[in-house]
Amino acid sequence: MSFQNPVFIPGPTNIPENLRKACDMPTIDHRSPLFGQILHPAREGVKKVLKSDAAEIFIFPSTGTGGWETALSNTLSAGDKVLAARNGMFSHRWIDMCQRHGLDVQIVETPWGEGLPAERYEEILTADKNHEIKVVLATHNETATGVKSDIAAVRRALDAAGHPALLFVDGVSSIASMDFRFDEWGVDIAVTGSQKGFMLPPGLAILGFSQKAMEATKSATLPRTFFDVRDMEKSYANNAYPYTPAVGLLNGLNQACGMLLTEGLENVFARHHRIAEGVRAATEAWGLKLCAANPSVYSDTVSAIRTPDGFNATEIVTHAAKIYGVAFGVGLGEVAGKVFRIGHLGSLTDVMTLSGLATAEMCMADLGLEIRLGSGVAAAQEYYRANPASAHKAAA
Amino acid sequence: MSFQNPVFIPGPTNIPENLRKACDMPTIDHRSPLFGQILHPAREGVKKVLKSDAAEIFIFPSTGTGGWETALSNTLSAGDKVLAARNGMFSHRWIDMCQRHGLDVQIVETPWGEGLPAERYEEILTADKNHEIKVVLATHNETATGVKSDIAAVRRALDAAGHPALLFVDGVSSIASMDFRFDEWGVDIAVTGSQKGFMLPPGLAILGFSQKAMEATKSATLPRTFFDVRDMEKSYANNAYPYTPAVGLLNGLNQACGMLLTEGLENVFARHHRIAEGVRAATEAWGLKLCAANPSVYSDTVSAIRTPDGFNATEIVTHAAKIYGVAFGVGLGEVAGKVFRIGHLGSLTDVMTLSGLATAEMCMADLGLEIRLGSGVAAAQEYYRANPASAHKAAA
Amino acid sequence: MSFQNPVFIPGPTNIPENLRKACDMPTIDHRSPLFGQILHPAREGVKKVLKSDAAEIFIFPSTGTGGWETALSNTLSAGDKVLAARNGMFSHRWIDMCQRHGLDVQIVETPWGEGLPAERYEEILTADKNHEIKVVLATHNETATGVKSDIAAVRRALDAAGHPALLFVDGVSSIASMDFRFDEWGVDIAVTGSQKGFMLPPGLAILGFSQKAMEATKSATLPRTFFDVRDMEKSYANNAYPYTPAVGLLNGLNQACGMLLTEGLENVFARHHRIAEGVRAATEAWGLKLCAANPSVYSDTVSAIRTPDGFNATEIVTHAAKIYGVAFGVGLGEVAGKVFRIGHLGSLTDVMTLSGLATAEMCMADLGLEIRLGSGVAAAQEYYRANPASAHKAAA
Amino acid sequence: MSFQNPVFIPGPTNIPENLRKACDMPTIDHRSPLFGQILHPAREGVKKVLKSDAAEIFIFPSTGTGGWETALSNTLSAGDKVLAARNGMFSHRWIDMCQRHGLDVQIVETPWGEGLPAERYEEILTADKNHEIKVVLATHNETATGVKSDIAAVRRALDAAGHPALLFVDGVSSIASMDFRFDEWGVDIAVTGSQKGFMLPPGLAILGFSQKAMEATKSATLPRTFFDVRDMEKSYANNAYPYTPAVGLLNGLNQACGMLLTEGLENVFARHHRIAEGVRAATEAWGLKLCAANPSVYSDTVSAIRTPDGFNATEIVTHAAKIYGVAFGVGLGEVAGKVFRIGHLGSLTDVMTLSGLATAEMCMADLGLEIRLGSGVAAAQEYYRANPASAHKAAA
Repeated sequence: MSFQNPVFIPGPTNIPENLRKACDMPTIDHRSPLFGQILHPAREGVKKVLKSDAAEIFIFPSTGTGGWETALSNTLSAGDKVLAARNGMFSHRWIDMCQRHGLDVQIVETPWGEGLPAERYEEILTADKNHEIKVVLATHNETATGVKSDIAAVRRALDAAGHPALLFVDGVSSIASMDFRFDEWGVDIAVTGSQKGFMLPPGLAILGFSQKAMEATKSATLPRTFFDVRDMEKSYANNAYPYTPAVGLLNGLNQACGMLLTEGLENVFARHHRIAEGVRAATEAWGLKLCAANPSVYSDTVSAIRTPDGFNATEIVTHAAKIYGVAFGVGLGEVAGKVFRIGHLGSLTDVMTLSGLATAEMCMADLGLEIRLGSGVAAAQEYYRANPASAHKAAA
Repeated sequence: MSFQNPVFIPGPTNIPENLRKACDMPTIDHRSPLFGQILHPAREGVKKVLKSDAAEIFIFPSTGTGGWETALSNTLSAGDKVLAARNGMFSHRWIDMCQRHGLDVQIVETPWGEGLPAERYEEILTADKNHEIKVVLATHNETATGVKSDIAAVRRALDAAGHPALLFVDGVSSIASMDFRFDEWGVDIAVTGSQKGFMLPPGLAILGFSQKAMEATKSATLPRTFFDVRDMEKSYANNAYPYTPAVGLLNGLNQACGMLLTEGLENVFARHHRIAEGVRAATEAWGLKLCAANPSVYSDTVSAIRTPDGFNATEIVTHAAKIYGVAFGVGLGEVAGKVFRIGHLGSLTDVMTLSGLATAEMCMADLGLEIRLGSGVAAAQEYYRANPASAHKAAA
Repeated sequence: MSFQNPVFIPGPTNIPENLRKACDMPTIDHRSPLFGQILHPAREGVKKVLKSDAAEIFIFPSTGTGGWETALSNTLSAGDKVLAARNGMFSHRWIDMCQRHGLDVQIVETPWGEGLPAERYEEILTADKNHEIKVVLATHNETATGVKSDIAAVRRALDAAGHPALLFVDGVSSIASMDFRFDEWGVDIAVTGSQKGFMLPPGLAILGFSQKAMEATKSATLPRTFFDVRDMEKSYANNAYPYTPAVGLLNGLNQACGMLLTEGLENVFARHHRIAEGVRAATEAWGLKLCAANPSVYSDTVSAIRTPDGFNATEIVTHAAKIYGVAFGVGLGEVAGKVFRIGHLGSLTDVMTLSGLATAEMCMADLGLEIRLGSGVAAAQEYYRANPASAHKAAA
Repeated sequence: MSFQNPVFIPGPTNIPENLRKACDMPTIDHRSPLFGQILHPAREGVKKVLKSDAAEIFIFPSTGTGGWETALSNTLSAGDKVLAARNGMFSHRWIDMCQRHGLDVQIVETPWGEGLPAERYEEILTADKNHEIKVVLATHNETATGVKSDIAAVRRALDAAGHPALLFVDGVSSIASMDFRFDEWGVDIAVTGSQKGFMLPPGLAILGFSQKAMEATKSATLPRTFFDVRDMEKSYANNAYPYTPAVGLLNGLNQACGMLLTEGLENVFARHHRIAEGVRAATEAWGLKLCAANPSVYSDTVSAIRTPDGFNATEIVTHAAKIYGVAFGVGLGEVAGKVFRIGHLGSLTDVMTLSGLATAEMCMADLGLEIRLGSGVAAAQEYYRANPASAHKAAA
């Protein structure tokens, strides 16, 4: 296995050297006070990254998908009603999970490439006079389409409708990379993982619960043990887990939060935006369009790039891996074959990004697309030069 | 954090240098063929460690507890009947999980320190003419009491009763350290984790499913998504996971299996037995007794050592951590305060073990127990010298 | 410290992941047979990389400079005559070392940018009827100017003159990256280090001695102890060193040789040539010239690129480090300020190289040079696409 | 290779986890300001560890032996007179190096096991009316015999004789483990390496030069280039080296100094003394004697233990390595076969030490010595319990 080139998948991301080392930890006793010295600061750090004062932070040895299940199974009972929009593969999967857990999902089908339809949410919530809808799902950043949604608008929809439903946000590919405001947006459960904005290996589901969400755990009857936050809560009070925690990853998470907070969250977000703008400049220079419908929904963590009709975009990904040893993301679901994705989140520099763009150019040219070599690179270079990165070196 | 001394908790174990390095891996694309080159050999390796030709191997980014939940939720429906004995904290927890998932558990209360009551199982199964019992749970090695049970006898009980129930075995603290025969014993689901016999960091639930267990997944209605083995099965066929896999740990698992199989499973088991015998010789020299009722149930991976009445055994663990920087295990549940535990599984040498025994001696003496310094060490030295370890260096 | 971008200095090079891990080794007893299992294969590997059957390989905890001193002090006596050409900073430094050791160096001043003057050597050697010249120095690859020389031609000069002088070759920035033929070229001492073609951290001087060079050690009277190859030779026979060896680096060297030989030396050389050609294509596209006088002396490990008169080339290096976090090499000595250097040896892919070229472009543009953004990148892309690298992935 | 057990050679020592990671560093540009941020603090740290305000610190990619050569070749000329005592293998080797460099060594033969004869030094220096002796060599800790010497007494001898000779001290196995006072003792050159008290891998020669020693570099005519401190001094001023520095080891050295100074030097020394006392208690319990003649010269970093007449002590070392996977040190030179050595310097706990003692006991018993198993362990346990280590955990 060669590990020479950076990866450009939308997570797991390139792991900074110091986080590699933080995770690579000898065994300690996970029932000792020493473990508490890792666990509690890690949870505090996550809370700050979520911009929350009050969220209860839970961290499971699992993934973002496990985080979704934690959110549902701890707060809902079979037959409960859930409102969700489907605008990409990841919102689709969360809906699918709801259905498999016996929940009744009211699905708002939304074109892939558009953001969450807050106005439609407001209509539905207003119409739900009996407040049968218990939870509203919102995917902050659709990793499949490179589309970010306006969570504040979803909160306004709930408020305008005077609806008490819980607001669950999938922030897997946004948290720690794009602005996320747990308290201000009235989020009840936020879900993320270790392998995106936190720049760690996969293996952690990371969640924040509001007090209202904690309250809901008391009446929820969906079966749960591994993902039960009440067990977790009790154990945390004793510096422990209900089972064996992933100590090394928690140590890494603690350090990752330290890096992010030292850099400053706004700097982190600005850095991601800047890198993303370079990728978008390249895309335009290539004469291609993003899957994302318009600039207001452009994601700063992943760009899904549409290729011309009749061209199988997946070939770019296969070719890049085979010929150049570089990993991009394929299109998923409705946009399979129509887009390829460049992940640009986590620990990434101008220089690394340019190497990804140069690779994409070579692949497209190799596969017969009319791409002028160097054109996207030049556009990104121009952008990066014109917008110097004073902050971008912080997350090393 | 100091990492100078070995740990003597019954898992996570001391991680060998090469497995540390195998897990500490840069990011690769987990949807690429490269990932398949890690995943499939790892699954093949686990199958061999289970001594199975036909088991389907599933590996989740989770823990042994997640493995228990995988076993239950994939094969059972609410209200299903389960037979289980409670002879320690871990069998207790699995029973508790069943109950929280709405299963009807027939519990055979068994003294802590004794093995599974195969005869009692046979009686109950024979009496269950309508075959309402769908699953028999069996904890192969009770980590809380240092007691191993005779799984072949449980299988004989099922067979003698002509009962079709599935046999689920918790092998978390036995598999890869003590003899385990998936096929020969007719195990339907075996559950373990990465952090015990496989000598890896925590973070993986590892399971083997028989074809009969796979069949049961079709009718089971307990809700499951994250732990659904059918999704896993489909994804494996594409070198993938239904979500982001813990690539580094899988790489470590692949290498761990290689180490174990190169050493030879029988050598691995003999090595564990030999190290354990030294600990038991020391225990006897100290004038203390094991929690395990008799030699036939002595565990080769963990010894729970009873301290004299009126003495709080937990103090030994606290004192060892505080004064000598060594981690032992406390007593849990019924035997809390009555035993302390020495984990002796995974990558351990005579020399490392002697350092643990020397520490235990100092702690007991410090806390006022009448222990002659050097006495347990001498007994173990005697045993190790008389039983030279030709094989014990293999798992480095 | 951030380690996100590759380095483009002409050594130390980017260290492949597996070599990082090979060097990062716990302490072993360096007087045990285990050490011999590292030392001897490492020496055998080096011998093969040198294309020698008979060379004695010596490895010191030192650097290439220490290797130069080893060559001189083991074979010469104060006042001995040495023939050397000065065509760059590194040939200059070796000459300087000779003089500081009391040797009488006949210096052939040679324009920086040209290769060794084999014809001039032949004249001088032919004129040296009394064979007072004991050693001929030859810098295979001048790292300062990016110029390779024809060592076979130097050997022919010696032979044509019928001169018995020893031939010492500085292969620090060529060996393991460019073709080197110890036996065929009649090299008497070859000198290199760990941190270039072997892709390891710095810390080793690596030498091959011919039997004729070994013979010379007997009469040489320059004082030496640390660098005495006779002590080394005796100790090697006992799996040992005369002092504490750098065990981790030796372990890395052993593995590095394995990588190179598995890839195949000719493939390694072709890979370096291919990467270098891309850099040269970019240089041409920028409208710039190499310091190297003509294609026959172009180095495949480093390119020294001349910038326009009146421009301080060092600013590119400073700017790249400060603004883009990328390390290039400055000009040294006569060409200080006139060239900047791109190192392209060791573990490097197309993709990594393109990121270096993109960075150089941005720096030159930022500093006011008339460089079209993307132009060099495009030229290199064109070359790499037209000359696919089937072998280039081997040195991972 | 297995790395399960600690090593008990008198260096290289067990490397703490954090120092392993500090040394394992990706490539940086060693001519960049970043390098200065490693180099200068490392040199400052060493100066503090030497208890010096004014020493010039030099660090070479080499070993302690290279450090000896640096001391001699930078300050002396062929034929210069040196005074030295030979009381062990390492003092012998330094004398041998002097002779090979053409120096005229007045050797005071001293029984192996005794310390430096300060009184005899005083007589000789007093008799040297013409001050022909330029340098006095003093081995602070003879690693071969486990004997420390009184450097303050040597300084008093020089002062009493009113003699201007330089005082060179080999502190390879004492510095950073035992009290060393560069300024107070009037040391002119102190020599050590990375792999002992600094707990790093081998690969660095570390020296302190007094201003008087710096002055001597001006007139010294022994040839030197690699080891020339004047080149080093000039380069340091530019954040650089005259050649490629061992960046990773320097980074480790910087961190090692931080660890030692945070713990507090006196605590470090007390910790070594305490661990050593346990080993000496065990030795006495075994009925054996140290090579060191009396308590005033007992070394706190290594114990050379005499075995009964007619017994080949080297067999213990061979047997320990082969059967128990533990490394001890053999006897060297005059005491070869008569002693075996237990290194007890660097990162070592009670618990680790006890494992070494338990191993030594098993080996001696296996080889037929009349050793009661557990006896030495018990004596050390008794000592460690009675002398609790509040400080000993600091150097992790």
